[in-house]
Amino acid sequence: MPFIAETTFHVRYVETDAQGVVNHAHYVSYLEEGRSDYLRQRGSSYANFERDGYFLAVTDLNVRYLKAIHYDNKITVRTWLTEARSRTLTFQYEIRHTETDELHATAITKHICLNRTGAVTRIPESWAQWMD
Amino acid sequence: MPFIAETTFHVRYVETDAQGVVNHAHYVSYLEEGRSDYLRQRGSSYANFERDGYFLAVTDLNVRYLKAIHYDNKITVRTWLTEARSRTLTFQYEIRHTETDELHATAITKHICLNRTGAVTRIPESWAQWMD
Amino acid sequence: MPFIAETTFHVRYVETDAQGVVNHAHYVSYLEEGRSDYLRQRGSSYANFERDGYFLAVTDLNVRYLKAIHYDNKITVRTWLTEARSRTLTFQYEIRHTETDELHATAITKHICLNRTGAVTRIPESWAQWMD
Amino acid sequence: MPFIAETTFHVRYVETDAQGVVNHAHYVSYLEEGRSDYLRQRGSSYANFERDGYFLAVTDLNVRYLKAIHYDNKITVRTWLTEARSRTLTFQYEIRHTETDELHATAITKHICLNRTGAVTRIPESWAQWMD
Repeated sequence: MPFIAETTFHVRYVETDAQGVVNHAHYVSYLEEGRSDYLRQRGSSYANFERDGYFLAVTDLNVRYLKAIHYDNKITVRTWLTEARSRTLTFQYEIRHTETDELHATAITKHICLNRTGAVTRIPESWAQWMD
Repeated sequence: MPFIAETTFHVRYVETDAQGVVNHAHYVSYLEEGRSDYLRQRGSSYANFERDGYFLAVTDLNVRYLKAIHYDNKITVRTWLTEARSRTLTFQYEIRHTETDELHATAITKHICLNRTGAVTRIPESWAQWMD
Repeated sequence: MPFIAETTFHVRYVETDAQGVVNHAHYVSYLEEGRSDYLRQRGSSYANFERDGYFLAVTDLNVRYLKAIHYDNKITVRTWLTEARSRTLTFQYEIRHTETDELHATAITKHICLNRTGAVTRIPESWAQWMD
Repeated sequence: MPFIAETTFHVRYVETDAQGVVNHAHYVSYLEEGRSDYLRQRGSSYANFERDGYFLAVTDLNVRYLKAIHYDNKITVRTWLTEARSRTLTFQYEIRHTETDELHATAITKHICLNRTGAVTRIPESWAQWMD
């Protein structure tokens, strides 16, 4: 079983659109926040990696939208690592209604490790701590 | 050959992130703007459909990120319809650098037609005008 | 002493810009979230008011930016009501670093109550519960 | 008469909220885009300044919201410089409906010049070209 980070927050009014529900674009920010919190929960921070001169760039994004999210809903993003290779990472996600546990969306993101010059580089050993 | 809408604009500073390039989440808003403009260029507007009580909900989103977009870059979103069924639509996209024509990203979105109650419904005949 | 709602969260990576700090536009969303949470903490929800056919439109916004907010910082928005009249409300805010308590920004927003037709209307009695 | 930059674009669906109009937070991004375009129209670019190691940080923001903006509206941001001092700049704005010329909002932003270390510094001579 992989480590699964659960990140819970209220969706914001600014994230809704004229359809009266959360605009699909904001789910992508929720996934990013899920990754940020995954690292925090593993005792690290993406901020450290950037300070060390490494960046994770998104190469692929897939989202399946199953059920609309309404303003003031509290949602839980579940984030886990499904593949870690020398230069790439793959994360998977579920966005669920915190109270009802209903599934709002599932997603996958793929990432590549870059250095300050933007060149693809090996993921540093120091990251291994949270990659098991 | 399908009708291809080309929509050109400068990316905004607020759309960049600490990596110094446009954050991947904003590409999804660019695609949505591409769809909006596709309808305008076909002589319609998504606003009309909502006034008629129809909504297009996104069910699937796929984005492949190929090359970072920097602040002040002028980009062109190319949007075309690849499938139109009784209740669903599929759009495909390219995001290119307007001057160099370099390809920054490709994407696909799938949509389902809903009525005011949120129930899946047939796409109205009036939409057929821009669906050939 | 007025009731002060304290709302704490991590800023998101997508909210930073190429300057490497949170873009000033996102502070406005933090204030909105502060208001949302103020209502929750008073035992209500802005969602209820909209269900009842009332809307709070922002008429004035003032923000003083004192100190940059960096990615991964945990901030606390302090929100309180400074004036409640028959048709208008005024909220005041502080955005502070949760750990160091440093003041990042102060703000004021003024609001007017609208009904479904967009006409200015009296704030319903039911809101009085959280307006003392 | 100062130089006034006029920047015209359609508001985006993602910028609307559940009230069915553009959320007030996005006006701040429109102002930022107005400043970006002001520099372009003066033959410069904010990107150049950052390359030279200078940054403009926002210190004060004032927005007066006069009339809601609806999806698909085309708006024109009018941007002009009202004060240029050795270390600070002040811009003023109008957001108007492009077709009807109706005034949606007025705004003022104040800015301070920072260097790479985040210290307040004199605005470089090279900026003088667009500051008359």
